[in-house]
Amino acid sequence: MNPNRYAHVIQLQLDKVGEYKRLHAAVWPEVLAQIRQSNIRNYSIPLRKLPDGGLYLFSYFEYVGADYAADMATMAADAKTQEWWAVCKPCQKPLPDADADAGAGADAGAGAGEWWADMEEVFHAD
Amino acid sequence: MNPNRYAHVIQLQLDKVGEYKRLHAAVWPEVLAQIRQSNIRNYSIPLRKLPDGGLYLFSYFEYVGADYAADMATMAADAKTQEWWAVCKPCQKPLPDADADAGAGADAGAGAGEWWADMEEVFHAD
Repeated sequence: MNPNRYAHVIQLQLDKVGEYKRLHAAVWPEVLAQIRQSNIRNYSIPLRKLPDGGLYLFSYFEYVGADYAADMATMAADAKTQEWWAVCKPCQKPLPDADADAGAGADAGAGAGEWWADMEEVFHAD
Repeated sequence: MNPNRYAHVIQLQLDKVGEYKRLHAAVWPEVLAQIRQSNIRNYSIPLRKLPDGGLYLFSYFEYVGADYAADMATMAADAKTQEWWAVCKPCQKPLPDADADAGAGADAGAGAGEWWADMEEVFHAD
C-alpha cells in the first residue's frame, strides 16, 4: 500500500455481527482519541457477505504521521485500546494467511503480529 | 453507506490479475477526467486473495457532488468510459448476489445495474 493509505481485511464471526455493529456504533471515546493521537484519519470499516458465505470486514484509513510503526506501537501499548481489542477480537477471525503478505508493518487495530491482513493497492486517483 | 463514502467489492478473474494491474497502473486520462468530473475523489482499489482462493477487489471512494445518481448516469453515458469498461469488465466477476443489497444507487464503474456489490459501513471516524 501507499504509506499514507492502508487497507486490510478480516472475517467477522457469523454469530457476532450484531455485537460487532453495536460495539462500532459507539466506540469508546478513549479508543477514538487514541486512534486520532496515532495519526489515523478517515477510518472506515465496510462489511459484506462474500460468496463463500463468510462475512468480511474491510478497513480503510489514512495515516498522517511520520512514523507509522512507532504510532502503532504506542496505540498497542495503550491500556484502554488493549481492553477494547479484548472485547472486539472474539468477534473477528483472521485470514489463515494473514501473515503471508509483505505488509506495511504492524496493523492498526491489531497490536503485535498480523491480525488484519494487508491488501495491495492496485489503483488510486486523488 | 454514508452518502459521501462508497465501498464496493467484486472478484477479479484469477488469470486476469496481471492485465488488471497493468490497466490500472495507467488508466486512460479521459477516464480519470470523467471520474473527477463525476465528483468522485480519493478513489482507491485494494486487492487481496481471500480464503476461498478468489481474488477480491475492494473499491473505496468519496463523492463530493450533490446528485450521485445523475453523476453516475453521466459517467455511464460517456463513450470513452464505456470503452474502458469494455476492456476492464472481462477481468472482473461480479458477486452472484451483487443485486441483493439495498444499495446506494448505481455503482461507479458499473453503468446501469449492479456490477460492483455495495458494502455496508459499520464504522467511521474522521
